[in-house]
Amino acid sequence: MPVKPLSAFMPLLNWAPGYSRADAQSDLVAALIVTIMLVPQSLAYAMLAGLPPQVGLYASILPLVVYAVMGTSRALAVGPVAVVSLMTAAAVGQVAAPGSAAYLTAAITLAFLSGLVLLAMSLLRLGFLANFLSHPVISGFITASGVLIALSQLKHVLGITVSGDTLPELLTGLFTGIGGANGYTLVIGVAATVFLFWSRTRAKPLLLARGMPPRPADLLAKAAPVAAIVLSILAVVQFGLVERGVKIVGDIPAGLPPFALPSFDLGLWRELLLPAVLISLVGFVESISVAQTLAAKRRQRIVPNQELSALGASNIAAALSGGYPVTGGFARSVVNFDAGAATPLAGAFTAVGLLLATVFLTPLFRFLPQAVLAATIIVAVLSLVDLAAIKRTYAYSKADFAAMAVTILTVLGVGVEAGITAGVTLSLVLFLWRTSRPHMAIVGQVPGTEHFRNIDRHEVITDPAILSIRVDESLYFANARALEDAIYDRIADHPELRNVILMCPAVNAIDASALESLEAIAHRLASAGIGFHLSEVKGPVMDALKTSDFLDHFKGRIFLSQFEAVRTLSTTA
Amino acid sequence: MPVKPLSAFMPLLNWAPGYSRADAQSDLVAALIVTIMLVPQSLAYAMLAGLPPQVGLYASILPLVVYAVMGTSRALAVGPVAVVSLMTAAAVGQVAAPGSAAYLTAAITLAFLSGLVLLAMSLLRLGFLANFLSHPVISGFITASGVLIALSQLKHVLGITVSGDTLPELLTGLFTGIGGANGYTLVIGVAATVFLFWSRTRAKPLLLARGMPPRPADLLAKAAPVAAIVLSILAVVQFGLVERGVKIVGDIPAGLPPFALPSFDLGLWRELLLPAVLISLVGFVESISVAQTLAAKRRQRIVPNQELSALGASNIAAALSGGYPVTGGFARSVVNFDAGAATPLAGAFTAVGLLLATVFLTPLFRFLPQAVLAATIIVAVLSLVDLAAIKRTYAYSKADFAAMAVTILTVLGVGVEAGITAGVTLSLVLFLWRTSRPHMAIVGQVPGTEHFRNIDRHEVITDPAILSIRVDESLYFANARALEDAIYDRIADHPELRNVILMCPAVNAIDASALESLEAIAHRLASAGIGFHLSEVKGPVMDALKTSDFLDHFKGRIFLSQFEAVRTLSTTA
Repeated sequence: MPVKPLSAFMPLLNWAPGYSRADAQSDLVAALIVTIMLVPQSLAYAMLAGLPPQVGLYASILPLVVYAVMGTSRALAVGPVAVVSLMTAAAVGQVAAPGSAAYLTAAITLAFLSGLVLLAMSLLRLGFLANFLSHPVISGFITASGVLIALSQLKHVLGITVSGDTLPELLTGLFTGIGGANGYTLVIGVAATVFLFWSRTRAKPLLLARGMPPRPADLLAKAAPVAAIVLSILAVVQFGLVERGVKIVGDIPAGLPPFALPSFDLGLWRELLLPAVLISLVGFVESISVAQTLAAKRRQRIVPNQELSALGASNIAAALSGGYPVTGGFARSVVNFDAGAATPLAGAFTAVGLLLATVFLTPLFRFLPQAVLAATIIVAVLSLVDLAAIKRTYAYSKADFAAMAVTILTVLGVGVEAGITAGVTLSLVLFLWRTSRPHMAIVGQVPGTEHFRNIDRHEVITDPAILSIRVDESLYFANARALEDAIYDRIADHPELRNVILMCPAVNAIDASALESLEAIAHRLASAGIGFHLSEVKGPVMDALKTSDFLDHFKGRIFLSQFEAVRTLSTTA
Repeated sequence: MPVKPLSAFMPLLNWAPGYSRADAQSDLVAALIVTIMLVPQSLAYAMLAGLPPQVGLYASILPLVVYAVMGTSRALAVGPVAVVSLMTAAAVGQVAAPGSAAYLTAAITLAFLSGLVLLAMSLLRLGFLANFLSHPVISGFITASGVLIALSQLKHVLGITVSGDTLPELLTGLFTGIGGANGYTLVIGVAATVFLFWSRTRAKPLLLARGMPPRPADLLAKAAPVAAIVLSILAVVQFGLVERGVKIVGDIPAGLPPFALPSFDLGLWRELLLPAVLISLVGFVESISVAQTLAAKRRQRIVPNQELSALGASNIAAALSGGYPVTGGFARSVVNFDAGAATPLAGAFTAVGLLLATVFLTPLFRFLPQAVLAATIIVAVLSLVDLAAIKRTYAYSKADFAAMAVTILTVLGVGVEAGITAGVTLSLVLFLWRTSRPHMAIVGQVPGTEHFRNIDRHEVITDPAILSIRVDESLYFANARALEDAIYDRIADHPELRNVILMCPAVNAIDASALESLEAIAHRLASAGIGFHLSEVKGPVMDALKTSDFLDHFKGRIFLSQFEAVRTLSTTA
């Protein structure tokens, strides 16, 4: 194996030498914009994960730096994201009580384990496992998670207490608790939600219409959450709303992220391993999709295996600095990209900005109402809900829709881990089921040509003594018997048959089971006095057959083309 | 759905009306031969399953009659078989102590559950599940089971007590226990084993050489086990070997099979459900393979779904008459077929023969040494051990070999259930892994033709502004990303590219994930200023694409042939 250059593991070395003043300027501007967006978002996602607010900031700093050194995407921003925060809450909530020290330790341990899983996947080149999360399953998972997250935040907007993690529990809790809603909280929460929704879509067009140039208009629209935060803090302080029952974020310890260690309790590791694997897979899929989308726009390249390493190291960095599981987020990466980030240094600058905010600005957030943080989460996650995808999938493929529907219903009714497991399992079963029943066509010759087509779709010439059957799938254990059945059924019905030709242009592989089936077919046809032949066998398949003793026993012929086969074997011509 | 004729559920109605005197004669002779073979074999397999000897006889009677009415094979003989007996011992041994009444009840319950599983599979048309037991897994499973069974019987040949179910346990037990071997038992056991081995292969040629006509020679050779039994019983009685420590079968209650009921303890059902599913699948695969081999020789037809019903009903019949799980056995079916069985009535006649034996002959077997029964099992199962298959599989496919090796090692080291589960899981994972990394070829035009071939294998003409890529697999979620990666890598390396053509002659299906990948590729290529086109899309795939809105957004062209695509897009021509 050739020794890889160091730059393969530290892509930093590829761009750092050519770093220019213009790059630095772009990166600094992008960093400023992303920092303004990330401070409230980090606090909010920590609340979603059931963790103290500062943990969200911690998880946003060191991982960004590590990814800047190791990642292959130049625009990806790594940190806490909504779906992973929900998955963290679900996993950690099963082993510790929210608010306890054990809960925080479990979250840190989960990040550490998730990092180890990602590094192991990179080392063993298991990145392909992420491919088994099909688009409909991922899409259904994210939509259902978005709904769950939004519902779980409604309690903060109403100022009530609701326990439960599933749709029925949340709905019941909200329904019974709504009578006890705190009016002040409700006003602030609803106002913030409406304002954030409005600013997301309408603020920029409005500012543009008022004659503001595009760039400041964009910046101002992006700063809307900051306005909501400042206004709500002022309102709380001015009107003494804490005494009137409005819940606030409270004291956030200021200072550098702490050095933390995960628990090394093996029992805890065993309980958190499956969630860590699922978080790693979901996080990797989300991250790489974002990275590839952005890279393609600038014709840059993402190396999936190196991304696994970079995300793994980022999660370990999150754990060691008191954070929780992180991944490349869609919203923050797109903002970073649109703001003009030229290199991963933009991420490092953002980290510095967040560090400064953590050290100096946290006291300012003391009177921030939880309802406003909940509003930012609700507005963020509702953009994840993609109902059109459900309709589109239903129209295109019932099997894909089934996998998606089961994922959504299981996430809503049981939970995130059960949902993704059920979706993946069902999509694999449906795929195996489909390939186990391959499309097979009896073919005949199109008059006047050398082409052979399905006798059910075309007017073709057939010879009653010859059965030409085309199988449209690689032959492997799950469909080998289907081929046997099809051929045996046919010969039982047609005593006049003298030759069977298996046409193989769509057979990309033949495994040992299918090989034995072919031998069995040849043997049984021979004992019934019928010849068995192959046509249009692909080069690689032929190479494989030559390594077995199949061809030594095979009494039939292997024809280059179906036309040649029929011409040679025909009795009527 | 059209109403099926009654004969579809009772194939008896197909052949009974035309039943002739000649058929009756053939069936009676076959029944006599099979009965002689089955009496000792039934006792032996019951011993292997850890059950009283008469249970083997009970399991051989009613299931034969039920299969005669419902089965679609005219020669299959249903009853206890070696591998299923071992699986029964493994499953029941986990919930009850051998020799206890609970053990017998659990075995009966296992047969009942297995029958329900088979009937449910028939009703839900889940017979295709059996296809997921690949040939290498089945072959490895049977070979390893054969080795385990032979080793487990050696203790009877030696006259010692050995506990344990795995290879290490059995070897350790035999090694430490061999010092306490009973000399008389050893002599009888070894003599019987050698004689049975010899008679299996050498007796018939020897008799033929001595001038005996083929048919009596064959019959006499098949009666060798009877000779071994008679001689050993005489020896035990004559020399008073019971007092000298030779273990005998002992009293076998004479009489009709009892009416029995399974336990309806749900806890027991839950414990036995997985074993019942595995026994059903293994039994179904063994049975249908035998049935199809024999049917093909006479151009008869087996209906797999009806076979599930017939085997399910046979197992329920076994349970209700005090037996244990049954299936169509290879040895007994081949003997039945070779002896000339014309219709399933041969099975019914065999059942009558076994019933007579159960009622009148069981006292004769009282002094039969267990060592002789063990010898008949050892000789029978060693023919199941197929080492050549291991070598053949290794030469043909490393993936298939890996699945086989894991099955064998897990069966030997852990147990039958773990072994088959591990083998099936690994073979599915390897299949998914293979399809997730499809063969993709960059193709170019073979000079002077309209053919396009792999640029790595052929001298071809390419246009630097066009990337023609052929993917040799259906596109689905597990490989959609691989296609994206391949294309993105390529365009990152070749800034001169203007058009990408995806050549699809081997794409049999495109699922929703792959469709989204195609959309993503089209979108990303468009944002990089590159055209994206398809060629040689199959009819059914095109039909599916038309149900989606893919074609509405698709900016590229879909060409009937690759040649046309390149001719149209070429800049150098």
